Amino acid sequence: MIYFDSAATTKPSLGAINAAKDAIEIYGNPSSVHSAGINGKKLLDNARKTVAKALSAKPEEIVFTSCGSESNNQAIFGLAKLRVRRSKRIITTDSEHPSVSAPLSVLEEEGWEVVRIPTVGGKLCLQTLEAQLSKGCAFVTIMLANNETGAKYDIASVRKAIDKSGCGALFHCDAVQGFLKVGDKREIVKNCDLASISAHKVGGFKGVGALYIKNGIKLPPFIRGGGQENGLRSGTENIVGISAFAGAVECFDSEVVAHISQLYKYTASILEKVEGVVLHVPESHVDSVLLISALGVRSEVMLNALNAEGICVSAGSACSARKGVTHAMQSFGLSKEMLESAVRISFGAENTKEECEILAQKIEEALKRLKR
Amino acid sequence: MIYFDSAATTKPSLGAINAAKDAIEIYGNPSSVHSAGINGKKLLDNARKTVAKALSAKPEEIVFTSCGSESNNQAIFGLAKLRVRRSKRIITTDSEHPSVSAPLSVLEEEGWEVVRIPTVGGKLCLQTLEAQLSKGCAFVTIMLANNETGAKYDIASVRKAIDKSGCGALFHCDAVQGFLKVGDKREIVKNCDLASISAHKVGGFKGVGALYIKNGIKLPPFIRGGGQENGLRSGTENIVGISAFAGAVECFDSEVVAHISQLYKYTASILEKVEGVVLHVPESHVDSVLLISALGVRSEVMLNALNAEGICVSAGSACSARKGVTHAMQSFGLSKEMLESAVRISFGAENTKEECEILAQKIEEALKRLKR
Repeated sequence: MIYFDSAATTKPSLGAINAAKDAIEIYGNPSSVHSAGINGKKLLDNARKTVAKALSAKPEEIVFTSCGSESNNQAIFGLAKLRVRRSKRIITTDSEHPSVSAPLSVLEEEGWEVVRIPTVGGKLCLQTLEAQLSKGCAFVTIMLANNETGAKYDIASVRKAIDKSGCGALFHCDAVQGFLKVGDKREIVKNCDLASISAHKVGGFKGVGALYIKNGIKLPPFIRGGGQENGLRSGTENIVGISAFAGAVECFDSEVVAHISQLYKYTASILEKVEGVVLHVPESHVDSVLLISALGVRSEVMLNALNAEGICVSAGSACSARKGVTHAMQSFGLSKEMLESAVRISFGAENTKEECEILAQKIEEALKRLKR
Repeated sequence: MIYFDSAATTKPSLGAINAAKDAIEIYGNPSSVHSAGINGKKLLDNARKTVAKALSAKPEEIVFTSCGSESNNQAIFGLAKLRVRRSKRIITTDSEHPSVSAPLSVLEEEGWEVVRIPTVGGKLCLQTLEAQLSKGCAFVTIMLANNETGAKYDIASVRKAIDKSGCGALFHCDAVQGFLKVGDKREIVKNCDLASISAHKVGGFKGVGALYIKNGIKLPPFIRGGGQENGLRSGTENIVGISAFAGAVECFDSEVVAHISQLYKYTASILEKVEGVVLHVPESHVDSVLLISALGVRSEVMLNALNAEGICVSAGSACSARKGVTHAMQSFGLSKEMLESAVRISFGAENTKEECEILAQKIEEALKRLKR
């Protein structure tokens, strides 16, 4: 199998697997006060330090969750409760992940005003953002990197615009696709008040995420009970998954990021020579996601053709795969023809240049064979 | 280490570990439509069938969650939303787990009436329940087996009382401590409309649970986004943990249950001969939890003494360990002296009779040495 769908989920890295193996041996409940519990708590504390460090955050600013979607739900519903007396207005983009856009739709039904800033060409319209901020809002939620197009939104300018507006909005960022992939690791914490991240996009296991909450912000609890995770997220901690998350983070270093960048550039360079292939490269983007259109061949036909060759790619986000929804690509401004033939290629640590060559060759062959 | 704290969390079973290893290899996102995704979905579907079968439920009645606490929160907040127009009254017991009692306290603050049925001696007062049901209520939430005392509440009589009252209440059961440990596996599904279970109490990993929801009950979503878990719980599924859950369930068979029963009876028989030890054995109970008092030695002193010998026991639930809260034991009716010297011994598949003997001997020695 040749796997080019790391934006959907990554192959667990060796660092993650080894950390998980260790954590399976040390099975004490971190809330227990005996030695088994204390050893469990040490695993948890160490993992929290590792994940915090990767963000340049403080350990107490990290709440472990069960996935990026939970982090996003916790942030958005939590901020809504926290800020409702101040304003019932939220600013976001028109291309967020469903785990951001769906909670916002619920709030909209409950009477909140949700303003969606355009992101044509993968570029956040700062003029519109500034104009909207001047009308005030409770909080802003804007993603770091788009899961379908790879577009990197300029969160430093969002921060500046919020500060300039003086509206006092808190800024949540869905950083699931951008975490560890955007060069300056301080970028998220420097600009955001809250940020969602996920383990399985960086070589960890599915079912683990985290929410960064800047010190001083008092979000209400998302799950109530034993008071774990500083009271914000009760429930016995997923020690195996959390340890694997930390193991994955340590593995996903600058070499991996550089390797992924090389693969992106290399693949783009060979694919742009293939007749019928159009690359959709946003001005600013992460190098883990490359969106193309293979004109004249419908996405699902291309996916099946590649799948028959043992190659996994996708037509959009996995969360939308079975529903055919592609909000982000539409917001990007792709024409109907481009949309219907879109293919998302996303790179992981284990991919090789040879695999990229095979991918390009198989896309070329499929285009010749299947083009209408 | 001798581990007698399986009510806090169990050692992962070989079945769980092997299933996890397999799932790490098959890492596709179950929402992806390529072969890697389809293989991931197969793992998920098979695990759902296994867990459903263990309850005699249908696969579509199982929602995987991140823990028992999440299952309880989802059930209680979900039922409150679903039933609010019918009644704002909830019936529960005075000895529920914090992940049930804390959500109920939140609802109480929001104007709901919460009625707590006494459970003296670990016995649910059915007379009080019937009297309260006659006044009507939105839903009932009563646990199957108590995490601190091992008391098994008579959920069949709860069902009968609800039906007899004609109040139409839905019945949620926190079955985290009772799951697979109560003889008749159909008992939960036969009597309850919703039930919470957890993997790490039966040899699975921490960070995985499930909520049984009887077909036809339309609970609102707990996490919104990609629409996973039949729309009720978005977020990429914890495939490793869920597979390990199924592996653990298959391992936790009638032999394991019989083994735990033997250990319980054997430990009780040798401890009752130890001077200063009082056993608190509810009339009806699961055999996985044995609560005792070692009179004259404070719980934490006994815990430390045993811990120094490499033996892990607890003073109550792990979720309350660091806070010293012991609601269930108080509701049980233990005197102050009994409460302050309480020790919870909880058994797992890997415990042996020899370990039980060492435990009894070390408790006896500690009593002689430390008794005030």
